[in-house]
Amino acid sequence: MRLSSSLAGVWAAALSPLDADGELDLDRLVIHCNRLLAAGCRGISLFGTTGEGTAFSPAERQAGLEAVLAGGIAADRLLPATAFCDVPTTVAITRHAGSLGCPAALLLPPFYMKGVSDEGLFRHYAAVIEALGSRVLPLYLYNFPDLTGLTLAPELVRRLADAFPEVVVGLKDSSGDWSLSSRYLAALPDLDIFLGDERSLQAARRHGGAGTISGMANFIPGELVHLFGHGDDDAAQARIAEAVGKMVAHSFIPAAKAVVADLTREPTWRPVRPPLVEVDAAVGRRLTGALVETGCLAPAA
Amino acid sequence: MRLSSSLAGVWAAALSPLDADGELDLDRLVIHCNRLLAAGCRGISLFGTTGEGTAFSPAERQAGLEAVLAGGIAADRLLPATAFCDVPTTVAITRHAGSLGCPAALLLPPFYMKGVSDEGLFRHYAAVIEALGSRVLPLYLYNFPDLTGLTLAPELVRRLADAFPEVVVGLKDSSGDWSLSSRYLAALPDLDIFLGDERSLQAARRHGGAGTISGMANFIPGELVHLFGHGDDDAAQARIAEAVGKMVAHSFIPAAKAVVADLTREPTWRPVRPPLVEVDAAVGRRLTGALVETGCLAPAA
Repeated sequence: MRLSSSLAGVWAAALSPLDADGELDLDRLVIHCNRLLAAGCRGISLFGTTGEGTAFSPAERQAGLEAVLAGGIAADRLLPATAFCDVPTTVAITRHAGSLGCPAALLLPPFYMKGVSDEGLFRHYAAVIEALGSRVLPLYLYNFPDLTGLTLAPELVRRLADAFPEVVVGLKDSSGDWSLSSRYLAALPDLDIFLGDERSLQAARRHGGAGTISGMANFIPGELVHLFGHGDDDAAQARIAEAVGKMVAHSFIPAAKAVVADLTREPTWRPVRPPLVEVDAAVGRRLTGALVETGCLAPAA
Repeated sequence: MRLSSSLAGVWAAALSPLDADGELDLDRLVIHCNRLLAAGCRGISLFGTTGEGTAFSPAERQAGLEAVLAGGIAADRLLPATAFCDVPTTVAITRHAGSLGCPAALLLPPFYMKGVSDEGLFRHYAAVIEALGSRVLPLYLYNFPDLTGLTLAPELVRRLADAFPEVVVGLKDSSGDWSLSSRYLAALPDLDIFLGDERSLQAARRHGGAGTISGMANFIPGELVHLFGHGDDDAAQARIAEAVGKMVAHSFIPAAKAVVADLTREPTWRPVRPPLVEVDAAVGRRLTGALVETGCLAPAA
């Protein structure tokens, strides 16, 4: 059923290109978004983990979203990550995204404190939703335990979805843990469950998952769109899993930028914001070659 | 030598009292700061971990600092925590603190990404310092691995202090790991090392530590000021360690607010911002009793 969600599909968790001053390169970002949409992506998630979202200020993230819209990307193709650790900033940035027509927003839990209770996480999300008031929009919770030190328990997501129907409409799971992903899929059949781990995309689809919000989609969008569209293609899933394996041997975000730099022949794609550190162009070349070997990428012309 | 630092002493990592709407209760905060200063604290660290800093927006933190100053607390008694995950916000809030006359600021590393390199952390802090430019102020790095998932290696702190002398002037270590704290003390004899763990205050002082930035100081400031002032008092250190043990059996911040609520007979001290959850008044009463038993608190009149 969730496959029928209007937001189902492959969303690219877009990388954030930088200019020579380390500022967001808006022209390049629009070109990148258009390329991903042309490859069949349902849309673009801006300023998530892959987009180095936490390295950009609230004002930079608002300006970036506005610029992408001004560049001609339709608002219903944009799913921005809008969470900060504090409620007021989260409310402001989420409301801004809604006011511009984004169909939903993606919300991490507050990620500084550790060992917090489900009750505390419930209160945080409830406070955000109540403060949004009549300007609320559909929200996807974002589970990424490796980076937040917190796991959004399926029971917590259930409680939020029941308390705020048509607001808490789904979840992105970047746990990389299929046993947890399958628990979300089983416990939340009415919600859109997106996986961050492309290695489980086929399995998730078979269990009613709504798709993926994917860092790999920055450079192999077509393969992911194919797999999600066809559902049953073990060979495609195996190719994708092999490609993921090549990438995660490196720090993913700098490696992904280096791959895009190599594919586009634009070395200025490589820089990242601190605390990340860019990788050499040679790493990008090697990785592109490895991705071609998996069959996920066509050889360069 | 670092004991001669102008900032040496006991700094209270102030709790942030809330009003009935969950907003910062500025009047109560000023009263609390004055009480801590009257007890002999060198000063107050605002909006650190104990102050639930990450639950307040940049604007709230700026307004809070301004209100405390307007309430009559001298700027040289205030050491605000001013770090956010992104460089632009960190620069803005740090610059604001310096413009108001604060003698220094306390800076967490960017705490979303994990597994980042020392080079990446160096670049983050360097970017902050370079953007502050001529308006830079002395900075204390803030090591809290349990909450950030990152450890500031002594070699990284050394590199930053050498690259930015008279800017990177010290560190607060909340690792709770004396073996790491003693490495900082040994490797950085020219820097002010403050401990977050009051159980090691006497040991730190013996090894030249500059003092503590302490959550316990919210309710046992006198005992901490005594120990730091006298240096050698095993019995006082033992009492403090026992008091810490009583507190950390609970979630520290809600427990600390409940203790202050009990001591001041002001139950409105108890609420916390999500994702924390307040504890019952009975917990505060029990803990106050336990603190009296340790000898750190005088029995209620």
